[in-house]
Amino acid sequence: MSELTAVKLAQQQREVSVAEFFERNRHLLGFDNKRKALLTVVKEACDNSLDATEEARVLPEINVEIIDLGNDKFRIIVEDNGPGIVKKQIPNVFGKLLYGSKFHSMKMSRGQQGIGISASCLYAQLTTGRPLRVISKISPKHPAVYMEIGIDTKNNRAQVFKEEEKEWKKEHGTRIELDIEGSYQKGEQSVDVYLKETAIVNPHATILYTNPKAEQLIFPRATDLLPVQPKEIKPHPYGVEHGILMKMLQTTESRTLQSFLTNDFSRVGPGTAKEICQNARLLPNSKPSELTHPQIEQLMEGIKNTKIIAPPADCISPIGAELLEKGLKKEVNSEFYATSTRSPEVYRGIPFIIEAGIAYGGEQAGDQSIRLLRFANRVPLLYQQSSCATFKAITGMNWRQYGLSQSQGALPIGPVTVVVHLASVWPPFTSEAKEAIAHYPEIIKEMRLALQDCGRKLSSYINKKKRVGEAQQRISIFENYIPEVAGFLEALTGEKKEKTIEKMRQMLSKNKELIQQYKEAHEVTKREAEEKEDQIELKGAIEYDE
Amino acid sequence: MSELTAVKLAQQQREVSVAEFFERNRHLLGFDNKRKALLTVVKEACDNSLDATEEARVLPEINVEIIDLGNDKFRIIVEDNGPGIVKKQIPNVFGKLLYGSKFHSMKMSRGQQGIGISASCLYAQLTTGRPLRVISKISPKHPAVYMEIGIDTKNNRAQVFKEEEKEWKKEHGTRIELDIEGSYQKGEQSVDVYLKETAIVNPHATILYTNPKAEQLIFPRATDLLPVQPKEIKPHPYGVEHGILMKMLQTTESRTLQSFLTNDFSRVGPGTAKEICQNARLLPNSKPSELTHPQIEQLMEGIKNTKIIAPPADCISPIGAELLEKGLKKEVNSEFYATSTRSPEVYRGIPFIIEAGIAYGGEQAGDQSIRLLRFANRVPLLYQQSSCATFKAITGMNWRQYGLSQSQGALPIGPVTVVVHLASVWPPFTSEAKEAIAHYPEIIKEMRLALQDCGRKLSSYINKKKRVGEAQQRISIFENYIPEVAGFLEALTGEKKEKTIEKMRQMLSKNKELIQQYKEAHEVTKREAEEKEDQIELKGAIEYDE
Repeated sequence: MSELTAVKLAQQQREVSVAEFFERNRHLLGFDNKRKALLTVVKEACDNSLDATEEARVLPEINVEIIDLGNDKFRIIVEDNGPGIVKKQIPNVFGKLLYGSKFHSMKMSRGQQGIGISASCLYAQLTTGRPLRVISKISPKHPAVYMEIGIDTKNNRAQVFKEEEKEWKKEHGTRIELDIEGSYQKGEQSVDVYLKETAIVNPHATILYTNPKAEQLIFPRATDLLPVQPKEIKPHPYGVEHGILMKMLQTTESRTLQSFLTNDFSRVGPGTAKEICQNARLLPNSKPSELTHPQIEQLMEGIKNTKIIAPPADCISPIGAELLEKGLKKEVNSEFYATSTRSPEVYRGIPFIIEAGIAYGGEQAGDQSIRLLRFANRVPLLYQQSSCATFKAITGMNWRQYGLSQSQGALPIGPVTVVVHLASVWPPFTSEAKEAIAHYPEIIKEMRLALQDCGRKLSSYINKKKRVGEAQQRISIFENYIPEVAGFLEALTGEKKEKTIEKMRQMLSKNKELIQQYKEAHEVTKREAEEKEDQIELKGAIEYDE
Repeated sequence: MSELTAVKLAQQQREVSVAEFFERNRHLLGFDNKRKALLTVVKEACDNSLDATEEARVLPEINVEIIDLGNDKFRIIVEDNGPGIVKKQIPNVFGKLLYGSKFHSMKMSRGQQGIGISASCLYAQLTTGRPLRVISKISPKHPAVYMEIGIDTKNNRAQVFKEEEKEWKKEHGTRIELDIEGSYQKGEQSVDVYLKETAIVNPHATILYTNPKAEQLIFPRATDLLPVQPKEIKPHPYGVEHGILMKMLQTTESRTLQSFLTNDFSRVGPGTAKEICQNARLLPNSKPSELTHPQIEQLMEGIKNTKIIAPPADCISPIGAELLEKGLKKEVNSEFYATSTRSPEVYRGIPFIIEAGIAYGGEQAGDQSIRLLRFANRVPLLYQQSSCATFKAITGMNWRQYGLSQSQGALPIGPVTVVVHLASVWPPFTSEAKEAIAHYPEIIKEMRLALQDCGRKLSSYINKKKRVGEAQQRISIFENYIPEVAGFLEALTGEKKEKTIEKMRQMLSKNKELIQQYKEAHEVTKREAEEKEDQIELKGAIEYDE
């Protein structure tokens, strides 16, 4: 039997196209239910628009429109003022999975793998059979190009059903139109919330949004300054893996190990390269492609045992503690805010920065789990909270020391909103739908440190508040008994009751002053913070330049 | 600026190979930390061995060995007595992602997309730089083939470093050897637990396991009968999507709509096909490839409005309520068991069956969250519990009505183990790592129904237990007061005290009998269940046939 089976099995074996794969597994891309599908399409289109405008140094103006076509069908239109797409590339960008400009560059961006928008096109084709319609213009000198695009899934290739030139008033930009099966519902995890949170962490963007109820929402830009443009970098030696190093050694243009180390990595100067070679017991003039397996092992050990400075931060553009606090204030009305931005760190050779913030008290309910806002590269994450590294970092901490209640392994309970932002050249997500951050220990550790920093500020605030409250209570209780105490004293010592009362009141008022000082100091801190806020737009941003 | 940007962007745009994609995103495949990586490699190899032996109708004998190489490196060896792999296919099976026999067939199996084992090879290459070693033999007449295989990620192609014939005593089978970076730790989510649970739901397999501490564990087979071999089926019309239907219409060999419906779908006979055409207002002799977009819409409506019988169950091989209960009994020592197997249902045209079981009381702790065992196509799922459809189904139910305590949105608290098994032609997972089942409403609904069925049995048991307990308590309290009551009665009515006592005792003993009956009935149910159990191996399984 056996031989036949092996032969029979061999006949069935064949290649699976990546488009077929995702057609079957569309839940991997965020299309597992109708409501999420609607969000995913809007999200992928907006991410692309924000990336493209940022790349072109244009202040983004994005117009999102969702039209209810009835029978669970929706038309989604997203239009931007980005640089447009050259004609030849339009079919690939929208009609081919795993095609894009961002995968092979080490630079922070919202999009990554060139899957999102073509997957949306695939989903539209699957659920309504209608192609994607795109109109794009790259400059006033060129006419706009209009195309209708589908995907040949068996070969993962674009099918262009129609192509023509069109008049379009815009100077440059892209507008896409997709018909999909979806479901619209307000509230948590909705398109409305996604766009609102996107506006918070992208204060340089203007977003116009018409929802399926034909209500128009406008999120105007809060600043005319574009975020700093992140630079493209080379990998950092720390955390580079055996296989990647092997591949780099084989494909490098450098002729010696010494020049390979300085040219192909960031933060490795000639001195550091020499030290790595020494620690690896390898000659600096070895030919990279000729290193043997054990020699590569040595090289990895050598890197591990050499002190190399942290990767440069200019490949990442964090929101910044101040802007993050400002965003938090827009979102949550509370009495106390604390934020923290960590220094860049590395996971698997890839730099990242963690930022965190806490808003305490105010109008927030005190008897429920804290609210968690998650962002990765300025994109709000609305799904899969409990699978996210942020969740793991928070539930793994002891929040009781910061004055909140918490059962083991759960989110703490209290009137608190926590924000965590991961900015990275390559944020690792748990799925292509980019809903949750994967559990890399380096990332979780940084999240914890950032949150602990905020937590300490919070607990000192809570403790101060408690101390002031207690002192105040003691004083007012004591105040009530002054006449009685004075009366006893008169009976015992003959000291006049009125005089004693007078003295005691004086003592108390000193204490009250102290409390007042406490309170005022707190007010000043708050005022200062607010003043600082009005100025932050000048920092961490550059001038708009056409 | 704009035109230049578009051109510059276009220059950066290029294709990403699926191997490059997964090399960067290896956490998507279950390689996000060292401990999980060890489990994932063992799991992918064992899944393949179990699938191959089942396909070849061989009783599986699988030998798993993990050797600690020091410095967080491990050698994993998995050997089976399966049909082997023909020489020509070996490089593709292990050295090319998205290559396999299972993707294009509608049949229940553990593997799906042809990613798992080649991803393990990729991970080995990444972390230790060492190729996969495989030896395979398809029959006693052929020599065994030995190969060393790596992956050229840029082109997603196998690299064969060595190839030779070898002597191998086995008649047929495959043995692979991989060196990876990993970490070994016992307990939950460990290789040990995975193999134990695998043995529970695959009672026809013998698994020998040597862990890194050089301890040998043997899971002998509990039955010599192979599970029923699932048949390959055609898609069911319900839930087929517009895009898929469009593709099927374009590529079918049938000449008329009528024959297309009967030939290309399961459960559609000539009568049903006619009815569909009528409901769709389409002529049965329309040419499939010529249907227009609105006509396809009509056809979909027509399918929706026609009553079509559920898909055949023979494409799925569930564990069966009895075997599931038996497995549960092996795992958990408790006082009450209930299991339930639902009828086949369909999501997106794909048939599936849900099975569930509950074990209550016994040695289980009553003050903790219930324990949840999850399986998909007889494979234990150990990670991402809270992202799983099973979790959503359980937390969305009201368990208080079944006598357990539960806070909103959480797992219930109580001395309970819950098992859920999804058997399907294509189980939808939330990620390629196949850790959790995606949230399809149809699947969650079936899970809920199966669990409610078990829940009802549980609550009637708990209530009966409670009633018996209460009645017993009432009787024994009353019994203590009989002499006093009889004394009062004598004083009031003159009725002799001894006589009253006698009568009252008689009354009570009747009640006691009733309670005894209750208890005995329960014992009988239990005994019957146990007897039934001894016979079940004869059902739902066929004879072993070489």
